[in-house]
Amino acid sequence: MIVVMKKNADKEKQDRLVDWLKSMGLGIHVSVGEFQTVLGLIGDTSKVDMDLLESLDIVESVKRVSETFKCVNRKFHPDDSVVEIGSVKVGGGHFCMIAGPCSVETEEQIVTVAKAVKAAGADMLRGGAFKPRTSPYDFQGLKAQGLELLKIARAETGLPIVTEIMSADALPLFEDVDLLQVGARNMQNFDLLKELGHFGKPVLLKRGLANTLKELLMSAEYIMASGNEQVILCERGIRTYSDYLRNTLDLAAVPMLHELSHLPVVVDPSHATGIARMVPPMALAAAASGADGIMIEVHNDPIHALCDGAQSLKPEEYAALVKKVQAVREVLA
Amino acid sequence: MIVVMKKNADKEKQDRLVDWLKSMGLGIHVSVGEFQTVLGLIGDTSKVDMDLLESLDIVESVKRVSETFKCVNRKFHPDDSVVEIGSVKVGGGHFCMIAGPCSVETEEQIVTVAKAVKAAGADMLRGGAFKPRTSPYDFQGLKAQGLELLKIARAETGLPIVTEIMSADALPLFEDVDLLQVGARNMQNFDLLKELGHFGKPVLLKRGLANTLKELLMSAEYIMASGNEQVILCERGIRTYSDYLRNTLDLAAVPMLHELSHLPVVVDPSHATGIARMVPPMALAAAASGADGIMIEVHNDPIHALCDGAQSLKPEEYAALVKKVQAVREVLA
Amino acid sequence: MIVVMKKNADKEKQDRLVDWLKSMGLGIHVSVGEFQTVLGLIGDTSKVDMDLLESLDIVESVKRVSETFKCVNRKFHPDDSVVEIGSVKVGGGHFCMIAGPCSVETEEQIVTVAKAVKAAGADMLRGGAFKPRTSPYDFQGLKAQGLELLKIARAETGLPIVTEIMSADALPLFEDVDLLQVGARNMQNFDLLKELGHFGKPVLLKRGLANTLKELLMSAEYIMASGNEQVILCERGIRTYSDYLRNTLDLAAVPMLHELSHLPVVVDPSHATGIARMVPPMALAAAASGADGIMIEVHNDPIHALCDGAQSLKPEEYAALVKKVQAVREVLA
Amino acid sequence: MIVVMKKNADKEKQDRLVDWLKSMGLGIHVSVGEFQTVLGLIGDTSKVDMDLLESLDIVESVKRVSETFKCVNRKFHPDDSVVEIGSVKVGGGHFCMIAGPCSVETEEQIVTVAKAVKAAGADMLRGGAFKPRTSPYDFQGLKAQGLELLKIARAETGLPIVTEIMSADALPLFEDVDLLQVGARNMQNFDLLKELGHFGKPVLLKRGLANTLKELLMSAEYIMASGNEQVILCERGIRTYSDYLRNTLDLAAVPMLHELSHLPVVVDPSHATGIARMVPPMALAAAASGADGIMIEVHNDPIHALCDGAQSLKPEEYAALVKKVQAVREVLA
Repeated sequence: MIVVMKKNADKEKQDRLVDWLKSMGLGIHVSVGEFQTVLGLIGDTSKVDMDLLESLDIVESVKRVSETFKCVNRKFHPDDSVVEIGSVKVGGGHFCMIAGPCSVETEEQIVTVAKAVKAAGADMLRGGAFKPRTSPYDFQGLKAQGLELLKIARAETGLPIVTEIMSADALPLFEDVDLLQVGARNMQNFDLLKELGHFGKPVLLKRGLANTLKELLMSAEYIMASGNEQVILCERGIRTYSDYLRNTLDLAAVPMLHELSHLPVVVDPSHATGIARMVPPMALAAAASGADGIMIEVHNDPIHALCDGAQSLKPEEYAALVKKVQAVREVLA
Repeated sequence: MIVVMKKNADKEKQDRLVDWLKSMGLGIHVSVGEFQTVLGLIGDTSKVDMDLLESLDIVESVKRVSETFKCVNRKFHPDDSVVEIGSVKVGGGHFCMIAGPCSVETEEQIVTVAKAVKAAGADMLRGGAFKPRTSPYDFQGLKAQGLELLKIARAETGLPIVTEIMSADALPLFEDVDLLQVGARNMQNFDLLKELGHFGKPVLLKRGLANTLKELLMSAEYIMASGNEQVILCERGIRTYSDYLRNTLDLAAVPMLHELSHLPVVVDPSHATGIARMVPPMALAAAASGADGIMIEVHNDPIHALCDGAQSLKPEEYAALVKKVQAVREVLA
Repeated sequence: MIVVMKKNADKEKQDRLVDWLKSMGLGIHVSVGEFQTVLGLIGDTSKVDMDLLESLDIVESVKRVSETFKCVNRKFHPDDSVVEIGSVKVGGGHFCMIAGPCSVETEEQIVTVAKAVKAAGADMLRGGAFKPRTSPYDFQGLKAQGLELLKIARAETGLPIVTEIMSADALPLFEDVDLLQVGARNMQNFDLLKELGHFGKPVLLKRGLANTLKELLMSAEYIMASGNEQVILCERGIRTYSDYLRNTLDLAAVPMLHELSHLPVVVDPSHATGIARMVPPMALAAAASGADGIMIEVHNDPIHALCDGAQSLKPEEYAALVKKVQAVREVLA
Repeated sequence: MIVVMKKNADKEKQDRLVDWLKSMGLGIHVSVGEFQTVLGLIGDTSKVDMDLLESLDIVESVKRVSETFKCVNRKFHPDDSVVEIGSVKVGGGHFCMIAGPCSVETEEQIVTVAKAVKAAGADMLRGGAFKPRTSPYDFQGLKAQGLELLKIARAETGLPIVTEIMSADALPLFEDVDLLQVGARNMQNFDLLKELGHFGKPVLLKRGLANTLKELLMSAEYIMASGNEQVILCERGIRTYSDYLRNTLDLAAVPMLHELSHLPVVVDPSHATGIARMVPPMALAAAASGADGIMIEVHNDPIHALCDGAQSLKPEEYAALVKKVQAVREVLA
């Protein structure tokens, strides 16, 4: 860690700062320049509160030389991680297509969609049973019953299932779920992350509404530091001042996360754009950016059939898209 | 709710949409214009999924005429709400000053600071026992022990205590806490909000990192709809591309939240700016904007004494600030 | 335009508002609902100040039914526009690759790079002569001399040239430039846009630092309304709270702009990411999203050769990328 | 400047980098740590391209130790600057109230408003003659004629006038304007800034839509480096994802700009909020934050009189506000 002192910083205060840092077991290398003094901190600086240092009136700025994330860091784990969900592998060259309805509604619905997406080429089935909704008056999902319906669809198709968990209290219900999704709103629900670390089943961690890549990686670090190495990152769009789209899909996050971390990265173009017409181009772009998987909403029920343009694709649209995604993957190979 | 159809929208699809909306028990008023058709939806539109409608390829745009928040809405509750925390009132002309250290560290520390802020004019004591940290390797707070120390400080000073809760699992430990704080990262942890609704004790709800005012109000609605009317809103800065400050303090949120809702609004300038030198001007600005209270970090220990510029104020700085805040309040009166 | 009145809006004020709107030649359709009254404005509402209406204390909200952009609007021009720059066509299925150095430095440099990018498959040569820099102390470009060097490179290779114009004063120097670029910082320099409308040569309009798609289209409208139909839009990343990347490349803007407008859309992944390693995946993603062209920085000089990771690609990297971009284009076809 | 090398950076590349930096006349201090090597650059680093260095694949990160802004920097000019506009002083304890209509419309209008705001306590008259509008179809101002009407109003009241300039071409028309405003959209129109530096008259520089404080200061640096020291900074709200307000007023920018620079800082709450009801609380908050002046829209015509809630205040509202602002100023003294 490097601490740049302010020009003309009070000498006595600076000495007290150096003493305090030494009392934390750190080595301090003081480099006096023409205009400013720079302190180099050597040793385990993870216990140093960077914000506190930065706020001192004798300090100009502080810079960490080494990253605070360790388990997720590619520096210490150069090879790609491969996460296995049943027979499906994600990462390290293994690409997966996840598809299914926004919410699980009925057995007929979820089984029909599961069969359709399997036929179209999907590797995994998604479907919401616990639904986080901005309004307490909106449909909150079928909950435990929805999980049972997902398992029926899995039995019928063989597709592993992925669904969102909103609270550690519900973990006993997720014993037989293949991949547990943490939604954007819970990305920094640290108690939930720790419990998922102990739980041990694979986790799909979605990037929060307005979180940085470092924060996403630190949240993955919470899961890994608690003993669970089976983590998949998911880019799903971030909040900006966008006018025509719900969120801004940050595809450059894909190669950057691959550079920073060994974890697989999946993209969700359905939630990012909120408009089905935008899903195919963004799914192809995600594949071209090097993503390890794509998660897409697909529906198959009469009410939604009304809506050509809704967030969800129709099975035949999805099938056509899968073929193009595969062709893009071949260009990258 | 108003649905503006696209120019030349397919007539058959439009008829199916109208039928579907009618099947939900809504009255539909179709207004055919020169260029476009507009549907007016009459009845309980809270069950209509606005995003779904907006994504239809025959729909240009959708607009809600009435707000989806009800309990928090000033329209249905014109008078200011007053939240009572022990003998302290907040809102409706009652102004409160909340102060204390970032984290509870030792009995001596919290009691010393509590006495100092009381002497300076504070009405309530804050202090973190459960600490949400971006990194799993950072100090996570004294937890249950920290809560006990806060109660000792309350016994010594008579100040009601406010501290953060991170998970519904910990609620039994908070039976004797006066005001439960929901942190920015948990503003949309809906399961926690519902439990706090049932728990019934006063809640201080902080605005999330990048949440809109509507989302903040909907989260308050979760608590109120679950039966708890004792909610205080808190503006603590939002995430932007700011370069020299940690967050951007959105003070215009104060008069706007007062217009939209009857709930009291408190401002936290310490977390918003992250720099003690910026806290006094922003506290005065918060008072001038009409806030119902101000929450400020104050410390009193030798390590931090080193840091004139840290996020926390020293007790004597806080005492001077309280006097000026009171003078600004008098200008508004 | 639809004006939703506040519940219990003062009747007299409402009548005055209706009279005022009628005095502007508009027809007003008043629709009285159970809870609220809605005014439908019929006629040419382009002269109505929406912000003014929205700010009235009797008005809840205002919604435009029709877009304010006309020349750029796909509704009134359903076919893709094709912009012709010399023999190069952009849009309507014509895809172009633009490449060259960030700044024009010497004749040797620009000619060498021009030949290299032509050999690699580029259709057009870019290079900065007038450089907008945040600091007045940074290199501001070779200006008129840089334009002359670009023309020499064009003579040597036959590639049309594109370069940035910062001020209408400089227009006489750009008589013989093939495509004039408006940079992000000048996207809302309306006087410059109008002059470019009169000038008549093709314009590449970059999206501003934090501008919405509507604002980008309105700026294109300035050029078109002044008589110049040869406009290409360019997405180059927007400002967010991104931590590891300079900007956030908003690729969903590509299909959305294509839906809203008939104008071609080009993507600049070099400025969006600021890191050469990120350029190839983002260029492929841009192609997969349906962009009509890609603009990339390529260098060929010894100082930069030091920098494997600089923003600019080396010619051999660019040549390899062009092949993959073409393969992605074939997938879309 | 400090350059942190990547762990295991190629030794040969690093040597070439050091040689290149030395060839620029810089002294290099290489500090080899346990994990990483850090280069300290000594000398005039203003010519070093930080982005280029940062993008090298052997470089982890780069940090400037000294700021790139000089003329505007408080470090080199510890005392507050006082800008004089006729007999009005701004900064260094001198506070100014600027008021007037959004646009100059007629002689009667501007003279009436000028008299009203003078009576209410305003020190300067504002009014738009050249209007930057997002749409080419919106009213663009009375231009030269508007400037003449402003001068008439000045003659009638003695108030100095401030109005926006959009293009250097129009400078001859502004010879007799007291304070030239650069609007948010032109904050990085560097050619205009340079011309205003040569022109020499006082400039009110508004912060751009989404610009950082550093960028604002660098734009002021353009004016000062071109020879004009009479610069006032203006905070007018920045673009975020705000839902109920047009922009987010960043009041913490006021004390932070005062810390970084010696230039006066004025706040415009009218454009920041877009709603007259929000202007008084935000004006008071601006005064409490330590601003050196406040610019507010005031109208006095029958059409706007309809609009209690429009962006502009009525003269009587403004007069009441001025009194409260003065009372807040006394609290700070």
